[in-house]
Amino acid sequence: MGKASRFGVTQLPALIWLKNYDLSSLRADMMAAVIVSIMLIPQSLAYAMLAGLPAETGLYASIFPLLAYALFGTSRTLSVGPVAVVSLLSANAVGLAHMSSGIDVLILSMTLALVSGTLMFIMGLFRLGFIANLLSRPVITGFITAAGILIALSQLKHILGIPLAGHNLPELVVELAQYSPNSHFLTVVTGVVTIVFLWLSRAPLTIFLCRFMSKSAASGFTKVAPVGAVILSILLVSTFDLDHLGVEVVGHIPAKLPSFTWPELSILLVTTLMPSALMISLIGYVESMSVAQTLASKRRQQINPNHELLGLGAANVASAVSGGFAVTGGFSRSVVNFDAGARSPMAGVFTALGVALASLYLTPYLAFLPKAVLGATIFVAVLTLIEPHEITFTWKYSKHDFAAMMVTLCTVLLVGVEAGVIAGVTATISLILWRTSRPHTAIVGPVEGGEQFRNIDRHLVKQVNQVLVLRIDESLFFGNLRYLDNRINGLLASHPAMEHLVLVASGINHIDSSALQSLLELNTRLDDKGIKMHFSDVKGPVLDRLHRINFADELTGTVYLSQHQAWQDLTQLY
Amino acid sequence: MGKASRFGVTQLPALIWLKNYDLSSLRADMMAAVIVSIMLIPQSLAYAMLAGLPAETGLYASIFPLLAYALFGTSRTLSVGPVAVVSLLSANAVGLAHMSSGIDVLILSMTLALVSGTLMFIMGLFRLGFIANLLSRPVITGFITAAGILIALSQLKHILGIPLAGHNLPELVVELAQYSPNSHFLTVVTGVVTIVFLWLSRAPLTIFLCRFMSKSAASGFTKVAPVGAVILSILLVSTFDLDHLGVEVVGHIPAKLPSFTWPELSILLVTTLMPSALMISLIGYVESMSVAQTLASKRRQQINPNHELLGLGAANVASAVSGGFAVTGGFSRSVVNFDAGARSPMAGVFTALGVALASLYLTPYLAFLPKAVLGATIFVAVLTLIEPHEITFTWKYSKHDFAAMMVTLCTVLLVGVEAGVIAGVTATISLILWRTSRPHTAIVGPVEGGEQFRNIDRHLVKQVNQVLVLRIDESLFFGNLRYLDNRINGLLASHPAMEHLVLVASGINHIDSSALQSLLELNTRLDDKGIKMHFSDVKGPVLDRLHRINFADELTGTVYLSQHQAWQDLTQLY
Repeated sequence: MGKASRFGVTQLPALIWLKNYDLSSLRADMMAAVIVSIMLIPQSLAYAMLAGLPAETGLYASIFPLLAYALFGTSRTLSVGPVAVVSLLSANAVGLAHMSSGIDVLILSMTLALVSGTLMFIMGLFRLGFIANLLSRPVITGFITAAGILIALSQLKHILGIPLAGHNLPELVVELAQYSPNSHFLTVVTGVVTIVFLWLSRAPLTIFLCRFMSKSAASGFTKVAPVGAVILSILLVSTFDLDHLGVEVVGHIPAKLPSFTWPELSILLVTTLMPSALMISLIGYVESMSVAQTLASKRRQQINPNHELLGLGAANVASAVSGGFAVTGGFSRSVVNFDAGARSPMAGVFTALGVALASLYLTPYLAFLPKAVLGATIFVAVLTLIEPHEITFTWKYSKHDFAAMMVTLCTVLLVGVEAGVIAGVTATISLILWRTSRPHTAIVGPVEGGEQFRNIDRHLVKQVNQVLVLRIDESLFFGNLRYLDNRINGLLASHPAMEHLVLVASGINHIDSSALQSLLELNTRLDDKGIKMHFSDVKGPVLDRLHRINFADELTGTVYLSQHQAWQDLTQLY
Repeated sequence: MGKASRFGVTQLPALIWLKNYDLSSLRADMMAAVIVSIMLIPQSLAYAMLAGLPAETGLYASIFPLLAYALFGTSRTLSVGPVAVVSLLSANAVGLAHMSSGIDVLILSMTLALVSGTLMFIMGLFRLGFIANLLSRPVITGFITAAGILIALSQLKHILGIPLAGHNLPELVVELAQYSPNSHFLTVVTGVVTIVFLWLSRAPLTIFLCRFMSKSAASGFTKVAPVGAVILSILLVSTFDLDHLGVEVVGHIPAKLPSFTWPELSILLVTTLMPSALMISLIGYVESMSVAQTLASKRRQQINPNHELLGLGAANVASAVSGGFAVTGGFSRSVVNFDAGARSPMAGVFTALGVALASLYLTPYLAFLPKAVLGATIFVAVLTLIEPHEITFTWKYSKHDFAAMMVTLCTVLLVGVEAGVIAGVTATISLILWRTSRPHTAIVGPVEGGEQFRNIDRHLVKQVNQVLVLRIDESLFFGNLRYLDNRINGLLASHPAMEHLVLVASGINHIDSSALQSLLELNTRLDDKGIKMHFSDVKGPVLDRLHRINFADELTGTVYLSQHQAWQDLTQLY
């Protein structure tokens, strides 16, 4: 986990787990690697296709990045490599840059991965992991859901055998309406059969198989289903020459390992790709962290957020210099890796080895793989990204959060992925400002026989006409000072007998300088009307700050430690 | 004040004050108007110069806008017209648009005022006055201070008689270094003498004169000092033909009233000017509101924030269609108007009349006015915009607010006015997110013999090893959930005997859906370790929301109404 050593030098995470590495771990990691490799090979081809790149780049993005992550990452079971959402982000960014610069898309994809990886690495070095906190859960859910829908639709290109280039829902729908009559029959059959097979192989087949075998055997069987589809389709294509009948296949893949190449790095290109690279870093990091944390907490292991940035950064840089594209930790693969018993990042090293072997010896067979099958694999996989439960939960709990989610979702669908994230973050912050600018306030009084003060609208409490006690349930800042001014003006009008105004500050966690000056003005205004202003239940940190400017001296009333004291002191006269 | 009538129709504010208008108000308003007109005439010429426009546009911007505001505005004493900061904003925006479009700067200035006025009017109609809340006091102070410095420096152009076109400090400094050796001697003498005279006529002269006359007479005398300088300089120029010796003068002003013209309104132009127009609307509105509210509270009158938007919007539209430029309520003029006894917006109507008369009959004399005198007037006026007290106060009270102020100030100085406001708002929001992402927390215990719970680090309180009570002084949201997770993980390690964790929610004003899910996960994690999680002092609105998703059922512990109850209940076993 890379704790700072006595010399202030941070240890490489790999050195920590390697220290206690034994034979039983080796066996477990190798077993898991075999399963994950088999799963990763078709996935990597499919995501290369999604990223708009030649098939072999997917394989290359699944070799060295895994080794780099094994060295720097802190998750024991995260499976790094190409993933759907990041591939889509890369395709979009590279598509735009290609149009303006004319540079080859593969070189652009490598540059993008390099910039993104470097950004992550730098953020890791400067311990900036917290910036991922900017993305709230509703924004992430909205984003992932919409991206899933867009990815699924874009795969209809391969499943129907028609050209689709749209980046958002309206564009894709128009293209679908235009081209779907030209769908290629055999391709459609291949694609639809694969979708139905993959879909059935999830829940329904597992349930069915459970009648005949143990549950774990059944679930293991369903996990190899996509690989089964791949092998079967390769056999069918090569036997019946389906590729000559118009079923598009992956085609020739050079049988070699990735070679080291250096991406294009002009200042103009880096500047152009920077916003997209930042977006990929953030989204990739958040996605990977959520998987890593979920898995780590199951085994009571810990994830270091800043080391994760280093690990993913290194993985992306490794991908960039070995002919790959942007990568991150993938959800389904990592779960498989975890379930298959992986104990350490050594599983990732073995997986890389597996993919490398595939690059050398399996490419002649993979050339026959129909694109429709890969499209169908992606189609089914991304539909699981949609979480209706999360959406309904958010709707039930918070309309504001739901609104932020919908803004993200709709902007991604209607405009594009990057605009969606920006819109979502903007909506989230705006809604926070909006909510805090209209804080909840309550007139409170003492509950009979206790020291507790409660809302007069909710509880049976005592009241004294001359003493008004107002609890403000929000920090005071520039955004809500006018609202509170109005609220207090209203109370002055409705409580003509008021001689003391006590502001209960239990919910005030901070007072900024704008609000402070507003309070000082209010203090003077109340003084003109013969009303004293008091505070109670002021928290330590707020009080410390008020002492700096001698607030208590300026105040016409008193700052009480507790509301109980304030009440006893002020009401004894009446 | 334009309250909604029984029919839901909002009355024109002018109809309200006109109802009780009498002869004594008329006399008072006329007196004030004479004084303000005399002050406004040179000011309007100077601000036209600052806005990069012909002198007469300043006069035109001081006629119809005043009438429009009198009809729609709710401040009794606000003096609308050209002001320094808005003139600078207009000059910058129009300068850029002129470079790209080649359209005449006057037409661009009128269009900008029209777009800005329309925006304000629309915001007023939709009651969007609260968006001015986005600008915190430190950002406004930083902005005004830096704008004051930039304006003062830009006036050295007229005071030294050299060309200056820079929009920020570096540009201006370079130009000053380059051109100041070419300063025109007589112009410098005129400018510097005027500055010294105006500066002395503020505090020092008032103090000196007080020895010989009453204080109010002395302060009245110093207020006409700028007008004295104007008249004296006109006399000197016309007598000694200084304009032929190279002292630049205002020059020919057509002796006529403004004629109605329609600004250019192509979609492209409106789109180009929109960001600047929005900025002018916001800054102009905030500046005007702060004057209007200060003056209104002195006489216990009220300002309607949304009607103010309508009033200022109408004033800008009126300015735009009568050959003027962007206007708003000015600070010094409004104070003079108030002190001179103005009682109603009728004073503004009479002021407009005064400026109209000047446009018809005084322009032959104003033609001799040296630009150096106008520059000196602006120079001295804007230096009062700098408020060192406000800056030191903010430094003392809040380093965060001071940082936001400095970001604004430095960005305005080094980049420009618009970038400064954007940087300031961004810095403010970032600092709020940063602060709330690392909330203050305190382990609390009961104070001896009371029901109050206090920080164990600050007070002498009881403790029980098995029950840990943690008060969280911040709303829980996506930005701080990881921080709190870490905090609680740390407590688990340092308190091995813990069996109950009580979270005191007195400072939690809101829980968003991201934080809620995090709490549910924490609840499960603690349960695994045999620790029960409880809540106490939960506020009504937070509780209502938690009930929606049956939070209490999921919780391993109890939601207590008060921390006192929680303590009694949980500690009786130990």
